[in-house]
This record gives sequence, structure tokens and C-alpha cells, in this order.
Amino acid sequence: MITGKNYIGNQLSAKGSKTYKTFNPQLNIENDSTYTEATSEEIDEAVALASEAFKVYRTISGKQKAEFLNTIADEILALDDALIKTYCSETGLPEGRAKGERGRTVGQLRMFANLIEEGSWVEATIDTALPNREPMPRSDIRKMLVPLGPIVVFGASNFPLAYSTAGGDTAAALASGCPVIVKSHPMHSGTGELVASAIVKAAEKTNMPNGVFSNINSSGIAVGTQLVKHSGVKAVGFTGSIKGGRALYNLAAQREEPIPVFAEMGSINPVVVLPEALKNRSGSLAKTYAGSITLGTGQFCTNPGLLLGLKSEGLSNFIENLSNEIINIEPSCMLHPNIIGAYENKKQKAISQSSLTVTADYDSEVQTNYARQAIATVEGKTFMENQTLHQEVFGPYSIVVQCENKGQLEAIISNLDGQLTGTLIADNNEASNYSKVISALQNRVGRIIYNGVPTGVEVCPSMVHGGPYPSSTDSRFTAVGIHSIKRWVRPFSYQDWPNDLLPIELKNENPLGVSRLVNKKQTSDKL
Amino acid sequence: MITGKNYIGNQLSAKGSKTYKTFNPQLNIENDSTYTEATSEEIDEAVALASEAFKVYRTISGKQKAEFLNTIADEILALDDALIKTYCSETGLPEGRAKGERGRTVGQLRMFANLIEEGSWVEATIDTALPNREPMPRSDIRKMLVPLGPIVVFGASNFPLAYSTAGGDTAAALASGCPVIVKSHPMHSGTGELVASAIVKAAEKTNMPNGVFSNINSSGIAVGTQLVKHSGVKAVGFTGSIKGGRALYNLAAQREEPIPVFAEMGSINPVVVLPEALKNRSGSLAKTYAGSITLGTGQFCTNPGLLLGLKSEGLSNFIENLSNEIINIEPSCMLHPNIIGAYENKKQKAISQSSLTVTADYDSEVQTNYARQAIATVEGKTFMENQTLHQEVFGPYSIVVQCENKGQLEAIISNLDGQLTGTLIADNNEASNYSKVISALQNRVGRIIYNGVPTGVEVCPSMVHGGPYPSSTDSRFTAVGIHSIKRWVRPFSYQDWPNDLLPIELKNENPLGVSRLVNKKQTSDKL
Repeated sequence: MITGKNYIGNQLSAKGSKTYKTFNPQLNIENDSTYTEATSEEIDEAVALASEAFKVYRTISGKQKAEFLNTIADEILALDDALIKTYCSETGLPEGRAKGERGRTVGQLRMFANLIEEGSWVEATIDTALPNREPMPRSDIRKMLVPLGPIVVFGASNFPLAYSTAGGDTAAALASGCPVIVKSHPMHSGTGELVASAIVKAAEKTNMPNGVFSNINSSGIAVGTQLVKHSGVKAVGFTGSIKGGRALYNLAAQREEPIPVFAEMGSINPVVVLPEALKNRSGSLAKTYAGSITLGTGQFCTNPGLLLGLKSEGLSNFIENLSNEIINIEPSCMLHPNIIGAYENKKQKAISQSSLTVTADYDSEVQTNYARQAIATVEGKTFMENQTLHQEVFGPYSIVVQCENKGQLEAIISNLDGQLTGTLIADNNEASNYSKVISALQNRVGRIIYNGVPTGVEVCPSMVHGGPYPSSTDSRFTAVGIHSIKRWVRPFSYQDWPNDLLPIELKNENPLGVSRLVNKKQTSDKL
Repeated sequence: MITGKNYIGNQLSAKGSKTYKTFNPQLNIENDSTYTEATSEEIDEAVALASEAFKVYRTISGKQKAEFLNTIADEILALDDALIKTYCSETGLPEGRAKGERGRTVGQLRMFANLIEEGSWVEATIDTALPNREPMPRSDIRKMLVPLGPIVVFGASNFPLAYSTAGGDTAAALASGCPVIVKSHPMHSGTGELVASAIVKAAEKTNMPNGVFSNINSSGIAVGTQLVKHSGVKAVGFTGSIKGGRALYNLAAQREEPIPVFAEMGSINPVVVLPEALKNRSGSLAKTYAGSITLGTGQFCTNPGLLLGLKSEGLSNFIENLSNEIINIEPSCMLHPNIIGAYENKKQKAISQSSLTVTADYDSEVQTNYARQAIATVEGKTFMENQTLHQEVFGPYSIVVQCENKGQLEAIISNLDGQLTGTLIADNNEASNYSKVISALQNRVGRIIYNGVPTGVEVCPSMVHGGPYPSSTDSRFTAVGIHSIKRWVRPFSYQDWPNDLLPIELKNENPLGVSRLVNKKQTSDKL
């Protein structure tokens, strides 16, 4: 049942007077529940509890933490229809998507549970003593990854489950040994509270310290600001707009003790379409890309918002095919009136630029809060000179740039902002003739795709979801996959530390059998 | 031969009119050579060359880069006496230290050469395609670490070789595939130029692209500011003061594209001395610590500036022993008049605090620029309330805090700023009675030492040289050891990328035989 209250540790709490409601974009009405924003005192309490909880939580075993994460997954599934219905009522997204995202969320929790139960993720590294070394003996030194401290996670508008309350950032932080305070996304606070209740239930069932998790409601920016500036908070995870992510990054950098912010801020995900591919399969490419551009109403961070090709009859045909395909797709609902408002504004702002040709614009009547998909095209020179056209239009829109030649194509790519992904569409080994173009593309992105679409982010160890600024605030980390845990940990060395006081992963006996780098050799053996 | 010019890529260049000289603190006179500061245009040129060089340098093989690093090491050794003499004339440090530091510098270069020649450091991770997976097939995804781009390295005053021109930051950056622009330290620009000449010679001998390395002179802050703000620069390495490191961090965070700054800013390295140890070996501990406090005239980042014990007769005796020992040590020269000036000022500022007792102060005549070592002691309560006493006094000085009880000891440690190291001195299993104290200490430091001294940073894979702010700007990285390379790289994913276009570490054949995580199993096999 949704109470509209905050979770300050395991306790429901609503001491404030400021309230808000969520919105059902399909029905175009407010939802019933009323959410109470956290007060300044409640925020302080959540951070104080998290700091105390950290003293215990950072020392408990991987096995116990794994049990906690698996129980969270179980409790999320136990919410059953209530969660799916609330999700749909707060997002306008269909039930299939809700269930798919729930599966992904549960999968991520179990993936991290497996990781920490096994234990090798701490990157244990041991150099044993060399007491007779000349001119100086060497100490016994042992290193492993340890958690940073309380983490604040900001829920994402477009992933109410997989990148919000118990999503990837939270799962990675809890797995690492960091308590988490979630700043719930105001567009889906009901979904957030239900998931929070599952986490709290799991924390109680598995005897986790009170404060290992809190869930904070707010509809404005004051609560998030207070959290990021709080001296007890040691890192921040965020998924959303460049404006929002950069604001948090600035706050964190200006603290007396600066803290890391990993903000994934989306991008326009350039797709380079080479001539042979266009010649051979213009029709199927157009169909595939119309699908990718409109998937989830274009509300994915990896939506292909920019297609780049060499000016030619083939490219003109492709633009025509793509325009025809996209118009044939039924419009769908966006997450919130604010989001469709921003979409229409940004689309109009782009489309109103001179020298840009609109080749497709869905112009029939659509239901309120449904997005009209569109395609535009522009000359390479114009695109290079007009920064407005480089900005993300969050929704089912893409622009095709017709480049004069390879050199211009390379120059455009080299001057793009940092991107989550880049894609190359190529046939018959033509890629080998475009090495400079490919090299430029690699230097601007976190992931590069061959003959596919950027939408669809596989959760696996080899995935990078991140990239050069502004697609993320720190390209050295990924937000997806097991290695996303590295955002919340630091290496720590023990020098000549007694074996009985060492953490289990570093003990001589290696009771967990974790893989360790011992005197420069990787091994699971004991010493 | 020292020319006093900058290296802009491989070219000596001195277009500016602003000049300065270095200083010999032993002789208390200026050295002969005159250094010309880089102009704004020369800086732009160095960055432009580095950006161009990056396009080539990031793609060359680990074997070729290893040859470059090994040749740098050879060329540094070939500088022979000229380097050692210049080093000593610019630092006041003895020849033995110069040679030791040269050995360490050369060792670090060869360590990184071995690392990149072997190749597994890129953390290759492969998840092969699952074309028949339901409900969606999985793509083939392959990940590895790739370099960030041109890096600016600021030389350290206290490590003219090992943490300056071709020091740890530079070696790690060049190993990773990043070009480096060194902002030479004005106190040892002659040493810097000689080492730079060795790097340039090595770059030419091994056919590295021009611009892979530049060496920039300056005595003020304008040059460093321009470098850090330059859009072509992608990360910064710094070793020095909190004031300097934080200023660079702020500049980098305020850029349109923020970039990572790894600044190692030193600390006071708390040492906790437990009662049993004091009872059993007060005399030898005092001797050992007097040596650690005065090692290198106290000019190490890991100098033990804070000793913490429980008020007792044993602690009083230790303070007396330590005071006697430290006075018996001959004073030695500091790096520069500015550094001894700052030392005497900060020491006096600390000593002038009421409720603090000076137990040792070398009061005989000393040579100009030689430091007078000192020990002070204070009550736990006073220390907690007086932040001045928490500040680093860079030099041969330490303060002993007499805590009322375990609780106060724990509270003091918990409220310390972040530190590079913490040390525990304990006997007869008494450590097990201090688990909260140890836990608090672990949470404030990057490395913890048992019954040793914090000075002496072993260069090995298990070393962490870094720690919570302000000991470094990002505790998630280390400045020493092979893993320091992670500061300058980012993960990068290839999705469904053709085998012949993949980098060698990710090809099916695994021709280098690097260790890879393939479908969640670590292996050196081919696919």
C-alpha cells in the first residue's frame, strides 16, 4: 500500500507540509496518492542513520549482503500486480515494458548478489614480504577494494525500476558495502515507495543495520541539493538531463570535501551509414531505424538522434524510406506532460532552424501526451555551424546529416560532444576504407556498434554505458554491468597486517577461494 | 646540456621574455641556468601537437610503447653524473637520495613497459553472441581500457625524478597511450629539462609521434592555469600542497567539459601507539620514529606528523624518549628557502597554540636552509578543538596527542581529515581490544600499517598511495604501482565489431595471449 511517506531508514516518516502527486499521462489525470516531501531534519536523520549503518554494513560478509540483495529481488517480485499497475499509471508505458524492466531490475540485483557472494570482485592483490631484499626489505602488502560510504542515488524519469529506487546504481552501491539514500523521482514516487518498501522489508528480514537504505520524496531541487552538499554523503549517482547532472556535479565539486558524481546524461548517439550498406539494404535499414527511433517513444538514453551519411542518391532514398517508415508507426504516450512539452519545444526549436528540411512529421490527430515522431535532414556544413542541431531532442526524433565527403564526415564526428554510443552501418568490407572516420567516432563514444542499433543496453560484464562528457561526468566508469560497482569503491592497502585481523579476502588461507594477484600471478590458491 | 628552453614536442623553444632561475639551498645561492617561461602560444602549440599525436599514439602496440618507455629509462641513465649533480644542486638532497630516486624512476618506467608489453592490463572482457537467446538475442560485446587523451602532469617539489618529468604520473600516462605535457616544477627546472631531453631522445629513437611529450617551464600559476583550462587537455596529475591541488581541481571542475584531476596532496599520517607496545619497547619505537620523522628532512607525503596514544606513564616516557632521540639527529637541508620558510612558519603557528607543550626543539645554530626538528605534545581534548593542530607541517615535526581514553581516541581519528596512511603500533594481540579504533582509522586512510613506519612507499601492485580527501582528490585511484594507470583510461565497448577491425587484445585469436574475462571466466585462451 502506498502511504506517500518517506522511508528514513526502516521508518515511514512524513513530518513536512509540502506535498505533491504523480500523474497518469495515458488518462491525463493526477493519480490519487499524495506524497510528502522530506524535511531538512528528515534528510539529516537519513544521512546520520546511513553513516552509523556504514560502520556495520561495510564489514559484513559478501554472503550476507548477497542474501540482502536476493531478498530485495524476491520482495520486488512479491509486490506483483500492485507494482506493475502503479508503474503503468505513473509512466504511460505499457505493461510489457513494466514487466520487462522489473525482470531487468531483479536480474541486476541477483547479478550483484552472485558477484559479491563469489568475492573476487574486490581485486585482492598481495605482495608478500621479502625480508632479505637488498638494500631494503619489502613489507607484506595486501590490497582490496572497500566501499566509499553513504551514496545518494537520484531516480531516473525513464527507468522507474531499472535505474531508480532499486536500480543499477543502488544495487551496485549496496553490493559494494555502501548504504544508499534514494532521492525518489517525483514522476513515479508511488513506484518508488513500493520498491522502497521491498528494500526495507528485505533489510529487516536479513538483519541489515537500520539506515542501510532510505527513500526520500521531493518534487523540487532543494532536497537533492541538501543531500549532495551533506558532509555525510560520499558519492552520488544520477541518470537524467545534462542540466540536472551538471548542477549536481557542480555542487559536489564545490563542497569542502569534493565527492565523486557519476551522472549519465544521455546523448544523441550518432549513426554513420556508409554507401554500400545504403545501396544494398536501404529499405530494411529504414525499417530497423524507424523502430529504434520510436522505441519506448524515443525515451532511451541510447536513442539514435543523429544519422550521418555521404550525400548521394542512396542517402536521399534512405531518407525517403526512413520518413515513410516512421510515419507508419502509431504514436505512443510519453512519460509526463512536462516531458512531452519539452519534446515538442525542442523538436520545434530544431525544426525551425533555416536550411533544415523536415522530411517526416506525424500530422494526424493524436491522444493527449502522445508524441508525434519526426525526421529532419540537413547539409553537413549547416550541421557543423549550428550547435542547436547537436542538442538532444528527448523523444522519437532524428536528424539525418548529408555530408559532402569523408573529410567533412570525419570533421563533424570529431567535433561532436561526448556520446554514450556510436554506430557504423557498413557492407562488403567498406569499413576498411573509413579508418579515420571510425577512429574519430571511437574517440567520442563509450560503445561502438557494427550494423546494429544503439537502443538495447545488454547487462553484461563487457558493457560500457557511459562515455566522454557530457554523456557522463566521468568516462572512466560505466553505469551498467558488474564493473559499475567500481564507482562506489576505493582501493585500500594493509601493510604487515596480522593475518587474523585481515579481511577474509586477504587472509593467507583464502577461505573463499577468490582469485587474487599474488606476487604478480593471478591465482585462487592459498598462500 | 641545460638550455633553459621549453620542449614543445621535440623542439626546444623559448619565445617568451619571462625568465627565472633555480636555487641551491646547500650553498644558498642561485644556480647559473636561466629558464624561459612558456608563452600562451607555445602552450597552445604543445596541446595541439599532443592532440594530433594522440590520434597515432593511442593506436600503436604495447610492444612499441614499451620500447619507448625502456628507451626513456636508458636515456635517463645515460645522463649519468650531469643529472645527479643538477638534482643535488636544485634540491639540497644528498647524492645517495638522488641515485635512489633515479633508480626508482627508471624502475617505474620499466615496470610499466613490462605491463603494457604483456598486455593484460587492458582488462579485456568478452561476452560472445547468443543469437538464439529468448526473448532477445545477445550481441557479441567486447570491452577494454583505452586512453583518455593528452594529460598534464605537474612536477612535485619533493620528488624531482620519481614524481616529476618522467615520474610515476608520466610513466603511467605514456604507458596507457596518452601524450603528456609536463608543467616543470620551478624549483628543479634543470633536472626537469635534462629528463625531458631524455624523453625526447627516446621518442625520436623509437619513432613516436611528435607531441607525445612536451616540457613547459614556468615559475607562476598562469601557465598551469592555461594548461588545465585548455579544451585539448583531458586529465591532470599533480603532487603537492592542498592549496595547489584544490586550485587545479576547481579549475578542472569549472570547465565546460570537466576533466579528472588526480592530486595527491599529502597528509599528517596518524600513528596510533597502543599501551603494551609502549611498555615493551618505548626506546626502540622512539628511535625508529625519530628516524621516520626526520627522513629526507621530513619532506615526504607520508611523514608521520601525528602520534596518538592513551595518556599514561608509558606515553610520557615515550614522549621523553622521542624528544631525546630527535634532538640527537643532525639537522639537514630543505628543498628551497620557500619550503624552509613555510616549515618554520607552520611549526611556529602550531607551537604558539596555547595548551601545547614543546618537548623538543633543536636550538643549536644550524646552516642556512637547514631545518630544526621538533616534537610537541597536547591533550586529546585540545587537539579535537583546535583545527590548526590538524594541519600538515611539511618538515621534520610531529605532535603527540595524549588521549583520555579509547572513546576519545576513536573520536579524534573519526574526525581527522582523509589521510594517505594510518599506522598501528601494538604488541601481544592488544589490537583485538581496539577494533573500533582500527575501524575508524581504516575509514580515514588509503593504507594502514602494522608495527612499521609510514615513510617508504613500495612500488608494487598492492600499494595504495592515495586516500580520502584531502590526501587526494579522488580516493578511488592510487598514484603508485601498476594500477595508477587506471587514472588515465576509460572502458570502451565494441558491439558486433568485425574481428579484423578489433584491437589485438580483443581478437578471437588472442595473439598476445592476454588474460581475458570471456563469458564470465578468466582465460588466456583464444575463442
